[in-house]
Amino acid sequence: MGDTPAEIEQALRAGLERDLLVVSGGLGPTHDDRTVELLARATACELRVDEDLETRIEARSRTVAERMKRPYADFEPGVRKQATVPDGALVVGLEGTAPALLLELDGCIAVVLPGPPRELQPLWQATLETEPMGRLLARAAAPERRVLRFYGVSESSVASALAAAGGDGDGVEATICARDSEIHVDLFVDPGAEERAHALEDAFVAPIAGYLYSRSEAAVEELVLELFRQRRLTLATAESCTGGLVSTRLTSVPGSSDVFVGGVVAYSNDLKTGALGVPDEILSAHGAVSAETASAMAQGARMRLRADVGVSVTGIAGPGGGTAEKPVGLVYLCAAGPSGQMARDFVVTGDRETVRARAAVAALHLVRLLVTEP
Amino acid sequence: MGDTPAEIEQALRAGLERDLLVVSGGLGPTHDDRTVELLARATACELRVDEDLETRIEARSRTVAERMKRPYADFEPGVRKQATVPDGALVVGLEGTAPALLLELDGCIAVVLPGPPRELQPLWQATLETEPMGRLLARAAAPERRVLRFYGVSESSVASALAAAGGDGDGVEATICARDSEIHVDLFVDPGAEERAHALEDAFVAPIAGYLYSRSEAAVEELVLELFRQRRLTLATAESCTGGLVSTRLTSVPGSSDVFVGGVVAYSNDLKTGALGVPDEILSAHGAVSAETASAMAQGARMRLRADVGVSVTGIAGPGGGTAEKPVGLVYLCAAGPSGQMARDFVVTGDRETVRARAAVAALHLVRLLVTEP
Repeated sequence: MGDTPAEIEQALRAGLERDLLVVSGGLGPTHDDRTVELLARATACELRVDEDLETRIEARSRTVAERMKRPYADFEPGVRKQATVPDGALVVGLEGTAPALLLELDGCIAVVLPGPPRELQPLWQATLETEPMGRLLARAAAPERRVLRFYGVSESSVASALAAAGGDGDGVEATICARDSEIHVDLFVDPGAEERAHALEDAFVAPIAGYLYSRSEAAVEELVLELFRQRRLTLATAESCTGGLVSTRLTSVPGSSDVFVGGVVAYSNDLKTGALGVPDEILSAHGAVSAETASAMAQGARMRLRADVGVSVTGIAGPGGGTAEKPVGLVYLCAAGPSGQMARDFVVTGDRETVRARAAVAALHLVRLLVTEP
Repeated sequence: MGDTPAEIEQALRAGLERDLLVVSGGLGPTHDDRTVELLARATACELRVDEDLETRIEARSRTVAERMKRPYADFEPGVRKQATVPDGALVVGLEGTAPALLLELDGCIAVVLPGPPRELQPLWQATLETEPMGRLLARAAAPERRVLRFYGVSESSVASALAAAGGDGDGVEATICARDSEIHVDLFVDPGAEERAHALEDAFVAPIAGYLYSRSEAAVEELVLELFRQRRLTLATAESCTGGLVSTRLTSVPGSSDVFVGGVVAYSNDLKTGALGVPDEILSAHGAVSAETASAMAQGARMRLRADVGVSVTGIAGPGGGTAEKPVGLVYLCAAGPSGQMARDFVVTGDRETVRARAAVAALHLVRLLVTEP
């Protein structure tokens, strides 16, 4: 949304339909800062100059004027503008020259705060301590949120399991969202609906419990790093079509260096041979995109990069490079550890970015399975 | 925004304030698909069943019912619902069982399209060919957009140069946006303001022309790959703190494999030595985060991965690992080619993600400079 007066007024009107509207910024001394004027218009309140507030802003502005060696008269119109408030507004406080205001309306509290964080932060605290906000917060109870994360099962199977368990409603709202083949389910539980939520959750998870990998919001790379840390294992990557996406995700987590030793992005066949030790015979017999090459890459990552576990990705990200036998989206993965290896292959339908993202996520889940499967 | 009826109606009302409102989806046979009902409410139009449309939807639904071996009576309420349109609406076409509708209002044309792309795409084409859309498009002239991309200069210097050249206005609107240290400037030129835009652009670019690297929207990795392709050069990466971000960006571009041979993510010192040949003496004398290590990594990438150019990144991404001498955000880069090398170091202020993103972008620009500087 833009910031024309009409757009701002429309946004304010939308906010006023809720129990609480909080606005920050647009409170400066010049007339292109319109928050107060437009809030007055949206709430059909008159504007008036608050004389006590004007005195306080004037005192601050005189100090500034002296420091800048400019006549106070230059500041006067701005002071008057900043002391102009909607009729009925409570002046919550003043840190600079723009006040924090609270306007209690029929069914909504509107709070206006200055933009600069140094002013906004203490004034927001002061706002929370006002009597009207206290009343509002007393009747607000945050819905509880339960997080369930699945992998290896389709979105529609998760939706069916939820429906078969009775579905949401009666104080429990469910959202189901597919993210690079992970299925993220959130249950929002209204106060009082905890028992219904428990029963629904138990019944819903039971048939697909084998795919539930987390009850937290942590990304799979965080879970993998934590699992490896607990088991004192190290990890290395060997990536072709994902081009470094797996290592990028792993190293996005602070402290990953105690688990992740590094990786090779082996885009050319020369590098698959030279840096990872994939035998030429495997490449010529099966091709770079094959289960055999994926396995040799994972073993190569383990050995050459001296890690306990190596994980590899090779595939055809597209849009070019596909054949009838090996279509765009075909991906081979392998995770190799001290006591064996696990492999997967699949075809992703989607563009280059989708193929790469799903392949990277799948590789991280394969590593997770390798170290957690009994 | 959510999808409660009130929220949808509010979004429709906002769209109706423009010249054109286009909505897709929410046209299914069940009553929780509410687009038509809410559009009628927002425009104060009556709803009516379009009998001709009902006949066409019925024919399609009877075929489906037969195929599914279900009585047509099950479909009848849905057919009637999908044939219900705001009074005055033009039925643009039908691909499935949801029609595309066009409603001409005072000052706005509202277009409603089914969500499935297979239906939406032909129906949008058909919409463009209607008489009301023809009239609307005839009075719409797209503003011209000129793209300018700078690197190595601050956002405020670019803003100053623009202001010194006269600033925007008079039919030219400028946006300046910093993205991972790149400064993206777009000039939007109204019809008739082309001369003013040319003059402004020339005057504005002149003092900072040395930092202008592109007049296109292509990302720096695309520019680098194209420069290498023209010069028949190959590229390899050696990354520490960016953890594969540089190679991920390079390989996000289709066809990158003819330039990019691969890379090593050398997170541990062992890998810097083993996979890239960084001498132990350099690591122990200067540390992993040093100009000397960056140089050895870039040379190692060239030699070990057999590429014409190697580029390296080593730094402290944080939040831990900083010291007084080597603070969080310190980054060393080196690009090494057949006729010499270029190095850079700097400190990024920001979180882990910011440090990594800016370091990766800086590495790509360093490679660009290495092959383009005379």
